Formats: sequence, structure tokens, C-alpha cells
Amino acid sequence: MKRITSILVAGALGGFAGVAAAQQWPAMPEEPPTPEDNPTTEAKVELGKKLYFDPRISSTGTVSCNTCHNVMEGGDDGRRTSMGVHGETGPRNAPTVWNAAFLSVQFWDGRADTLEDQAAGPIVNPVEMGMPDHAFTAERIGGIEGYREEFKEVFGSEEVNIERMTKAIGAYERTLLTPDTPYNNYVNGDEDAMTDKQLRGMETFKEVGCTSCHSGPAFAGPQMPLGTGFFQKFPTFEDNQYVEKYDLMEDTGRHAATGNESHKHMWRVPTLYNVELTAPYFHNGAVNSLDEAVRLMGKTQLNKELSDQQVEDIVAFMGALTANSFPDQELPRVPSMSGKSSVLEYRP
Amino acid sequence: MKRITSILVAGALGGFAGVAAAQQWPAMPEEPPTPEDNPTTEAKVELGKKLYFDPRISSTGTVSCNTCHNVMEGGDDGRRTSMGVHGETGPRNAPTVWNAAFLSVQFWDGRADTLEDQAAGPIVNPVEMGMPDHAFTAERIGGIEGYREEFKEVFGSEEVNIERMTKAIGAYERTLLTPDTPYNNYVNGDEDAMTDKQLRGMETFKEVGCTSCHSGPAFAGPQMPLGTGFFQKFPTFEDNQYVEKYDLMEDTGRHAATGNESHKHMWRVPTLYNVELTAPYFHNGAVNSLDEAVRLMGKTQLNKELSDQQVEDIVAFMGALTANSFPDQELPRVPSMSGKSSVLEYRP
Repeated sequence: MKRITSILVAGALGGFAGVAAAQQWPAMPEEPPTPEDNPTTEAKVELGKKLYFDPRISSTGTVSCNTCHNVMEGGDDGRRTSMGVHGETGPRNAPTVWNAAFLSVQFWDGRADTLEDQAAGPIVNPVEMGMPDHAFTAERIGGIEGYREEFKEVFGSEEVNIERMTKAIGAYERTLLTPDTPYNNYVNGDEDAMTDKQLRGMETFKEVGCTSCHSGPAFAGPQMPLGTGFFQKFPTFEDNQYVEKYDLMEDTGRHAATGNESHKHMWRVPTLYNVELTAPYFHNGAVNSLDEAVRLMGKTQLNKELSDQQVEDIVAFMGALTANSFPDQELPRVPSMSGKSSVLEYRP
Repeated sequence: MKRITSILVAGALGGFAGVAAAQQWPAMPEEPPTPEDNPTTEAKVELGKKLYFDPRISSTGTVSCNTCHNVMEGGDDGRRTSMGVHGETGPRNAPTVWNAAFLSVQFWDGRADTLEDQAAGPIVNPVEMGMPDHAFTAERIGGIEGYREEFKEVFGSEEVNIERMTKAIGAYERTLLTPDTPYNNYVNGDEDAMTDKQLRGMETFKEVGCTSCHSGPAFAGPQMPLGTGFFQKFPTFEDNQYVEKYDLMEDTGRHAATGNESHKHMWRVPTLYNVELTAPYFHNGAVNSLDEAVRLMGKTQLNKELSDQQVEDIVAFMGALTANSFPDQELPRVPSMSGKSSVLEYRP
């Protein structure tokens, strides 16, 4: 087993010098990038966890961050596009929260620079959490005595505002990392951590060109300074059956957020960690299976018809990016609210 | 402190012989009643916990048992009436799941005999979880390989059906007990567990007549065989300002379920454990504060105008029924589903 593994690794790394190889197949760093103004503390993470799981952060009291980014599973919601308050759906598929800390921009279109910026968005999105504004949100959460006490402990005073709320949520999300994957254990020296098929898939993944975008600490591009982002055009090649079948042109991606023509169909490259668990795929959630997603990527991004064997091997490699274990999540106790019904029925 | 406590207890128990006093102020039993055909096992509880937290049990993949019966808080959702799939709301307030195992019938109208029977209901209620039928639900859950393996471990074969699902959920719910309350610790011998005010409130609670219904292991009436139920007419006294103000006559309670005239406005007596955490109150969630709920009960059930002091003391006693600690809830990992988007978008 070990011998075969070594040969395959040599193959997988063939043509790279030591430094390049290390960049090509990096382990997940132990610490994700953290904004200077939001250092991680244990108390802040605990508070952020409560806010992350608390549905009272939504107008109806029914939608929490965890509703669409479910840490019991793949860190997403398994839906084509997410469903928020009042049963309304948005236009895009929920990206996984697992290892999102390594992405240097957030949202499919990269319109948020940090996890903190991201967390503020859905709260006031009418079809997500549906709150009228951040002040109202802070007022509701600040109206809960137990929360005020925790804000004081974490931030020095009882004041609850959106900046503090999202700092706490961001700090919690930075703990949602899954380094215990076969791939990561393999590149960290456990030669038996990956199967032969996964190793063959890793080689194929590089050979066909996937690594030109899916590289770096989370297979989402090189680690760049927060707010920089690693974007690619999708689809790059439009003349194939996938583009129409899966309606890949309707949403203009980053362009829809910035209005900049050069951003048309530019998308942030997503992480591939735990991609096995996050079907359906792509910004519109149009593709159900990972096989089809890989085949589509080959054609739309590399203009290559991948063979069945190549697809199978690459999918096997994706399996090596699925966590063997996830960090334990003790469900938080959230502080209670009295006379609360009136504020949980807000409708815009 | 101890001396005062003793005097107050003597007062609280005054006029009762030893046995009667023990019945009047019972500790929560260590084990809840369990149906003979559903013995609790560790593996069954673990499976039930996964199903309890898994939103894929609902048509849209967005509503889990925990959505309306949130164990992070009071075991309810804090809403006047619950909100299910597609943002629709039902007519009644979500009762707490904490200690529901001691109730000998389930739902406000007692239409389910056991936790198992109860769990089957919301799954196919169009405004709750919105599944078309139980077979479809079993098919979706049974379509997830990881679940099939667990059903095999728990029930001996991979078959997933509604009976097995609800047995597992019921077994989990029987672990959701909160014996660690000041009251319970007090009656179990810790004389300092309750404050003087809480003890005075306990005495008032008995004196004014609350214990004629709110007695027994969970302050929801005497423990009766599963399926028997302890019902009372609410409101018993209709000639007061509360009945119209809070619209207490519209819903006919048990009568609406059975059609039996003698069941008009009969309701299952709810538990008072953790009632501080479960505002708003009553079947329609019309009352926001516990003070007002106590005052209303005095008038509608006992035809008494409680004084401000009596209300304050009784509310203090309610505080002695709030758990000091809740059993830890490690968030389960739920098994993954592939090609899943299509089945998470079912609409009736």
C-alpha cells in the first residue's frame, strides 16, 4: 500500500519543484485569517454561537444562520436555493459555512469582505431573515437581558449593535474548520490516509487543470488578503450543452452586485472541502450530483470532455476532502425573552 | 434562612397529613412513563435526536421538530402561534417539549395518546411540516444511506417507516427532562434551594386553588396512564374581561378534535415546569406576560381576583419551576443525502 501510494504521489507531484509542490498540495492552515479589529476570544465565540443558532435574529423568529448553513450536515441547507422567512426563496444556493473562514471574500459574488460583513447581510434581506433594519435587530437582541450581560462580558458594555453581533458571529464561524480530512492527513504525513483511487483522482485533478483555480488552503484559490477575493469567469466556455440545460447565464454574478461590465459572470471560487455533502451544486443549485458537477466544470471551465474514469477518480478525490470528523457542537442555551410574542411577529 | 424556610414550609403544607403533603408537593419522578412497545435504548435515543433536529423531515427541508420545540430555550418557539413551511401559521401555540414525557396525552386538545403519536402529526400537517403523507416521509429519510444503517442498528432492519421514526423521536423526547429546578431540589431535601418569596408563592399557589389542576409530577395534573389525559374546562368562568380580550372562546379545544359536545372548551392541563421561558401563553398565545397569565387563571378558573402580592408571589414560585440546568444537547451529525435538491422542494 505504502509503495503504491509513494509512486502515485510522485506522479501527482511530477514536474513540480519542492516549493511549488508544497503550494500545490498544501495542508489546511491551523488558523484562518482574522481581521485585526476582531480578535478571537473564547467568550466571543460562545456568544457568536448563540447568535448563530438563535432564530430570533429573524423577523418571524423562525430562521437562524444555521437554518441555511446547517452545521449538523454539510454547512448548507441541501436546497437548490435557500428558503427564508414567510417561505420565500432567494436566487442562490447557500454556500457551506465549513471553512468559509479561509475564503478571502464572502457570498457567491464576493460582495462581502469578511465573515463579519457577510453575517450582516441576510438579517435584513427581505427573503432571508426579513428584519426591517439592523437597529431593530439590535433592539430585539438587546431587549434580552441574558444577551446584554454577555455583550458586556465580551465587549465591555451592554450595548448591542450589529457590529458587535457580527463580530461575535464571525469569531464563531472562524472555529468551523474541518482539518481532519483524508487529504489533509495525507499531506501532513499519514501515507495511508487516502485510498489509491483518491490519489489517482488527485493526480487527475491536477493534470486536467482543476488546480488552476481550486488550489490554496481551502481549494478555493490562493489565500489572499481579506477582501481581495479570487474570482473566475463561469462559464468560461459557453458553447456546450450545460450552459442552457442548467441556466448558467441568467445570473451575472459579481456584475449584479457591482454593475461593472468586466465582472459579468465572475464568481468567487468556492471551497471544495466537504463538497460531497453540499449537493445541489453551483450558484443556482441546478446540478444534483457531484459527477455531473465535475463533468460540467471540465467542459465549461477547461473545455475538456472528461472521461467516465476521470470523473470517477476526481469524485473519489473530492471524497478525500470530506471531513472524517467535525468539531463537536454543543447546542448553546440561548437566553430567554419575556413578553416576546409581539416582536416575533414583525412583518415588513 | 433555614429557620424561616422551615416555618414557611410548615405553612405551605399546613393541614395536610404526611402522605397528602407528599402527593401535594411531589418531586419529578426519575423516569417518565414509557409505552411498553417502545423501550428506551441509547441507540434509539441517538437516532431520535437526529430525526428531531433534521429539517429534511419537512417538505421544504427547512422545518425540524426543534424549529417549534426549541431545546436551546424553553422547548417552544416564542411565537404566538407556530410558523411552518411556506411561512404559514397554525392556530395554536407550541407547547414545550421539556418534560412533555410526563403528560399522559399530547397536543393542547389531547388528541394524541403518546409522544410517538404526537410526533407523527406535524409531519403531514400542511401548515407545519407539509409532507404529503407518511410514506413519502419514510421514503425520503429511507433514501439516506446513513439513516438506513442506523435504523438497522436500532430496529433490526433497514426499513424506515413512520412508526419507527416516531418511536425514535419519542425515545429521544423522553430524555428531555429538567429535574434540576429549585422546587425539585427543595422537595428532595435541599432546604435552601428556594427563596422565601418562592416558598410564600408556593403556599399562595395552593391556598388560592391552583393545585386543584396543577399538581402531579409535572404540575399538569396527576400522573395518569398514557392516553388518559387530565383535561379541564378553560375558561371555567366566562364572565370577566379576559375572555373577550384574549379571544378565549373561539377555539373549542378538545371538542374541535372529537366533535363531542361535552368536550367543548376542554383543554389538557399544561405543565408549569419552565413556564417562565415559554411566553406567550395559552392555546392561542394571546397573553404575553406570566403576571397576566396568572391573574387571568385566577379569574377564569377560580373566579378570584388575585391581589398584586398574590400574583407576584405565585410568579416567584413559577420561577422555582425553571430549570437551573438543562441536559446537555450535543448537536447531532445528520447523515448526508445526494442528489437531494429535487425532493427538498416538494409542494403539495
